[in-house]
Amino acid sequence: MSDTIGVAMLGHAFMGRAHSRGFREVGYLAQPTLRPELISVSGRNREALVAMQKRYGWAEAVTDWREQVADPRVGLFDNGGPNKIHAEPTIEAMRNGKHVLCEKPLGMDAAESHQMWAEAERAGVQHMCGFNYRFVPAVRRAREILESGGIGDVVHFRATYLQSWGWEADTSIWRFDKAQAGTGAIGDLGTHIIDLARYLVGDIASVSALVRTVVPGREIDDHFVATIEFENGAVGTLEASRLARGRINYNAFEVNGSKGSIAFDVERLNELQVADEKSFTRVLVTEPEHPFMQYWWPPGHIIGWGDTFTHEIAHLLAAIAGEGTVAPHGATFEDGYRCAEVTDAILRSAASRKTETITYRGSDA
Amino acid sequence: MSDTIGVAMLGHAFMGRAHSRGFREVGYLAQPTLRPELISVSGRNREALVAMQKRYGWAEAVTDWREQVADPRVGLFDNGGPNKIHAEPTIEAMRNGKHVLCEKPLGMDAAESHQMWAEAERAGVQHMCGFNYRFVPAVRRAREILESGGIGDVVHFRATYLQSWGWEADTSIWRFDKAQAGTGAIGDLGTHIIDLARYLVGDIASVSALVRTVVPGREIDDHFVATIEFENGAVGTLEASRLARGRINYNAFEVNGSKGSIAFDVERLNELQVADEKSFTRVLVTEPEHPFMQYWWPPGHIIGWGDTFTHEIAHLLAAIAGEGTVAPHGATFEDGYRCAEVTDAILRSAASRKTETITYRGSDA
Amino acid sequence: MSDTIGVAMLGHAFMGRAHSRGFREVGYLAQPTLRPELISVSGRNREALVAMQKRYGWAEAVTDWREQVADPRVGLFDNGGPNKIHAEPTIEAMRNGKHVLCEKPLGMDAAESHQMWAEAERAGVQHMCGFNYRFVPAVRRAREILESGGIGDVVHFRATYLQSWGWEADTSIWRFDKAQAGTGAIGDLGTHIIDLARYLVGDIASVSALVRTVVPGREIDDHFVATIEFENGAVGTLEASRLARGRINYNAFEVNGSKGSIAFDVERLNELQVADEKSFTRVLVTEPEHPFMQYWWPPGHIIGWGDTFTHEIAHLLAAIAGEGTVAPHGATFEDGYRCAEVTDAILRSAASRKTETITYRGSDA
Amino acid sequence: MSDTIGVAMLGHAFMGRAHSRGFREVGYLAQPTLRPELISVSGRNREALVAMQKRYGWAEAVTDWREQVADPRVGLFDNGGPNKIHAEPTIEAMRNGKHVLCEKPLGMDAAESHQMWAEAERAGVQHMCGFNYRFVPAVRRAREILESGGIGDVVHFRATYLQSWGWEADTSIWRFDKAQAGTGAIGDLGTHIIDLARYLVGDIASVSALVRTVVPGREIDDHFVATIEFENGAVGTLEASRLARGRINYNAFEVNGSKGSIAFDVERLNELQVADEKSFTRVLVTEPEHPFMQYWWPPGHIIGWGDTFTHEIAHLLAAIAGEGTVAPHGATFEDGYRCAEVTDAILRSAASRKTETITYRGSDA
Repeated sequence: MSDTIGVAMLGHAFMGRAHSRGFREVGYLAQPTLRPELISVSGRNREALVAMQKRYGWAEAVTDWREQVADPRVGLFDNGGPNKIHAEPTIEAMRNGKHVLCEKPLGMDAAESHQMWAEAERAGVQHMCGFNYRFVPAVRRAREILESGGIGDVVHFRATYLQSWGWEADTSIWRFDKAQAGTGAIGDLGTHIIDLARYLVGDIASVSALVRTVVPGREIDDHFVATIEFENGAVGTLEASRLARGRINYNAFEVNGSKGSIAFDVERLNELQVADEKSFTRVLVTEPEHPFMQYWWPPGHIIGWGDTFTHEIAHLLAAIAGEGTVAPHGATFEDGYRCAEVTDAILRSAASRKTETITYRGSDA
Repeated sequence: MSDTIGVAMLGHAFMGRAHSRGFREVGYLAQPTLRPELISVSGRNREALVAMQKRYGWAEAVTDWREQVADPRVGLFDNGGPNKIHAEPTIEAMRNGKHVLCEKPLGMDAAESHQMWAEAERAGVQHMCGFNYRFVPAVRRAREILESGGIGDVVHFRATYLQSWGWEADTSIWRFDKAQAGTGAIGDLGTHIIDLARYLVGDIASVSALVRTVVPGREIDDHFVATIEFENGAVGTLEASRLARGRINYNAFEVNGSKGSIAFDVERLNELQVADEKSFTRVLVTEPEHPFMQYWWPPGHIIGWGDTFTHEIAHLLAAIAGEGTVAPHGATFEDGYRCAEVTDAILRSAASRKTETITYRGSDA
Repeated sequence: MSDTIGVAMLGHAFMGRAHSRGFREVGYLAQPTLRPELISVSGRNREALVAMQKRYGWAEAVTDWREQVADPRVGLFDNGGPNKIHAEPTIEAMRNGKHVLCEKPLGMDAAESHQMWAEAERAGVQHMCGFNYRFVPAVRRAREILESGGIGDVVHFRATYLQSWGWEADTSIWRFDKAQAGTGAIGDLGTHIIDLARYLVGDIASVSALVRTVVPGREIDDHFVATIEFENGAVGTLEASRLARGRINYNAFEVNGSKGSIAFDVERLNELQVADEKSFTRVLVTEPEHPFMQYWWPPGHIIGWGDTFTHEIAHLLAAIAGEGTVAPHGATFEDGYRCAEVTDAILRSAASRKTETITYRGSDA
Repeated sequence: MSDTIGVAMLGHAFMGRAHSRGFREVGYLAQPTLRPELISVSGRNREALVAMQKRYGWAEAVTDWREQVADPRVGLFDNGGPNKIHAEPTIEAMRNGKHVLCEKPLGMDAAESHQMWAEAERAGVQHMCGFNYRFVPAVRRAREILESGGIGDVVHFRATYLQSWGWEADTSIWRFDKAQAGTGAIGDLGTHIIDLARYLVGDIASVSALVRTVVPGREIDDHFVATIEFENGAVGTLEASRLARGRINYNAFEVNGSKGSIAFDVERLNELQVADEKSFTRVLVTEPEHPFMQYWWPPGHIIGWGDTFTHEIAHLLAAIAGEGTVAPHGATFEDGYRCAEVTDAILRSAASRKTETITYRGSDA
């Protein structure tokens, strides 16, 4: 087996930059057995593409992703494009035997996401959906505490993902175009907290939701709130908004168990609040024994949001190299699909004004 | 008109103590025109009653509230007893022309609460429901900011009232007895945040809720979550629990408007977080120009939870003296009734698994 | 022995109000064996005095403290007047056999403070200096933790008492008059943190300080900083200012020991931050087993700054009743004197620009 | 002029890793005109050196720094070794016309630091001392606010740099060896806050300090406290410790001005607390208009401690390319020297027990 893997990436905007940096940083930080070789980046804006190519060292810039998914040098296809073009290129890549990393939300809805998962299973490749918050050290630490029974049985979960840029947003970007994005706050922010809910507590059995487009003239949602029931009996709330003044990137959750609680806020990415029966302790998740911190600095020297992609890519490369598996700590396409069932149920419930029960399909593969 | 008013109080537990202290403190702090004279305290536990009488200086301790509501010396009847005995004594007092202060929840359900309101209107007395959090300086300040348009139009509201004592609670107290309490976390904690939602944002048009009794063997709820729609179009979430480890008395809300936000947590009673478009400012609500602070100390010298009752009682005594009105800053029995419509809808929705629309009745008086 | 004690108070401003409220509140909260009877209040401003008398229920208002210290009905003389009139009336009261409570700073300097202590010892009365922060539940809890070895041996201490009102202060009040106040930030704020340093860590062996009058035209200091050495070898810093923008009443300390740390801020009076080797836990000091909380509410219902005087007065009344002693949890006149030796050393060091060693005298009694 | 610059680095421990990553990250983030080419890394531990070389892509690993400073391919010499070997290799490199980056503290004392500065001036090369906290966006923003008069005239400054690892430290590392480190907490932590004091407020005129070695058997200091006077009249305190339990990397400062205040804590690197007259606002320094954030992500997506080195190196490369100057935002060797005068004065004052006035020399170049 070679010690390098050719990577092709679709996308040159926010996620394109975050992933590109991850592929660079992973080399000198995690030092994976399988080292990424940056073959090509693709996208529609030629100028942005060339700037991107030069900045991050992609060998080629191409305008047609079909070149990438057919390229024999490519072993890993990374899809960081708009939601609408997640499915087709990713499926094509998998059919060509490429391992895949696809940004969230996986597909435009549960049906499309399911198809992507089924294709992945059929192709037998490694597949990962880009839920990068699983790769925050404090989030992984939260999962460790939960798995070890550190806070007992979970009874409540609440998560909000609040931003405020929606008030002044340039709505010409794809994120406000229903045809390209599908949903707004739901797909962009809501999927992150749904995935965290699933990662930390378990699958969601039912949802009751309200969805709102507040700013006039928009096609897609600015905000939703939901109550949820987990399959294990815990209940909770979810909320995502692009219109919460004073909140910049407030992706925050709290889990209450029978013996203690855990709380987290991504604006304070390196901190985990851990409660016993009475009181919360602020833990700086920067000790050598904390997840991922073997790559980093002495205690108290914090890491950044972008570094979660480095962890994510290292995790995927290890799975491809046969040194681990994507699941359970990385999100597979099955996770991407299951998340999409929840977002579909949110939309159904907002329409029906009823609690919607969720049924999950097998892979059919 | 006399410059004193005779007060009779029902109750000798937590609320009885909080109200008694309020009646004492109001004398030397707010110095109301109408000064309270502590006539009698009533309750079922003779020993507790006598201790209470002695501690707070009630002239008499009686075991039958009927003596109190018939007592010609009494001008104000204060009902701090278990929920089940809110309606009958309070109505009887009003029929006898007494002004009334009744703890929350007003009645056992919306029907009983409505009856209390209708009787109050018929009797033409001053009536107040004990939503003491309206008398936190920071909460009143939040209302002032909202009324002045300081954060623009409200789009989101979220409130949680989280405690953790429910895990180890002595369930022999009336608060766990369905016949006396009606509900658990809903009536005890949820009504406070429903009232705050109404006080700050407006009336609630619909509710979708989940209600849970987690600890085996209990008759009443430990927890609920709900999504709500306000009549003005804002949406939000409500949650109350007695099982949230690490949370002692976490009555917290956040209001997001088109121009800014406000956040509050009763464990930090003297602080209000006020955001402009981007950032939260921590305001110590202890300046002379802040609500109620004319009674208190130089800036930065905080007041306590119990002092909200002093403000509440001062407010009621002023209304009785004709120096102001209970509404809008105090909760009237109409407010108590409207809150009960919401709690009824929470229970209906938990059963129907649908969004329940709320219809409010007039006073019929 | 009677079950009441007559109280006379000098002062009708900030401290006069805080003490008066304490004498009222102590009756229904702590319910001391020896109940205070409010005989008389004295001061120079007749109008303010009468308002005060009426508000808090002092039986008489007199303009000459000599009447009070000679009054046979008086068992306890409480001096809350300007610093300059602490010594003479208090000494006179003690010579007449009255127990005494005197606000801080005890005297105008160490010599005068020492005289007060010596007179107290000679008179054999109970004497307490008004360091009310010792009666904050969280501060007492900090002391308990320290005494039990909970954080090991103390190595560092740092305290700041920061306010900002000095920038806009009305300098006609006595607090800016050198003849009446002696010092500014030093006596007003610095003495509090010196007393806390002594209460928590131990006596101070040496001081090196800078003292500044920043605002032109003032007679007294706005600010000082100091490094200190404790007799037990720990070292630390002290700082007090009336000119620290953004800080309203920020009386905050941190103690670092060999096994853990403790941090506190009076603006969050009910919270204590307690660290083990790595992380701080926020403890709400409102549990029934916490100091003074037997007087109060269920957990999480916070108390206010003014309530510390209630605890202080309860403590003194118990000592007078023979149910306890002022020391070590209350500050005696010896504590007031020892604090004054530190403030004298701060002034000496600011002049000499050297580290000043402190020598403490015995009572000479 | 070439568009690349050859870099040689001395050091393979903590700073070696942080700098190496900076040289890698600067390429794809800041995209400097002058791109670093990683020629060689040197150090005494051959195994660590080779691991370092491989991890970060240094072309060669050499055991003698003399090879590096003589290497014609090298344009920039980066000294991240122990303090004792800062001067000689750096001076040699400068004499050979290399630009230099040297970790702090610059030399072993003021005299050696002065010599380094004088040599730098004579050589006419670009010289920077590694005070990386100047390159925290929030710190640069603090400086901008101060320069613009945003908080008025500075009156107080206080800074602490508190860690706790000293209790359990492996004292075999060079940081505990007096011959190699010179000082402990003073040079390691104290120099950072002295430099921040100078960067934000101005030069320090005098110092009074206490220095302590708490843990038995150590050669160097664990802790110091100091009061300082600035040349502009402001006064303040400094404290650094490796023995402050609960504090992991608590590098925190507060500046109080006549109109407002600024506070910062490196454990919350992306936040700046900015006060007006009364209240602190928490600013997330992640907006596009904030310093350095043009390299990074949308608002609210925080960066890490290690990224400050990327900013630092970008700054130096721009200066070498003639696109800017090291001063005033980068620390020059003059800044390194002036800092050393303060640390020398701390040691003198600890010995003399007096306030030590500081005299700064010119470059003599």
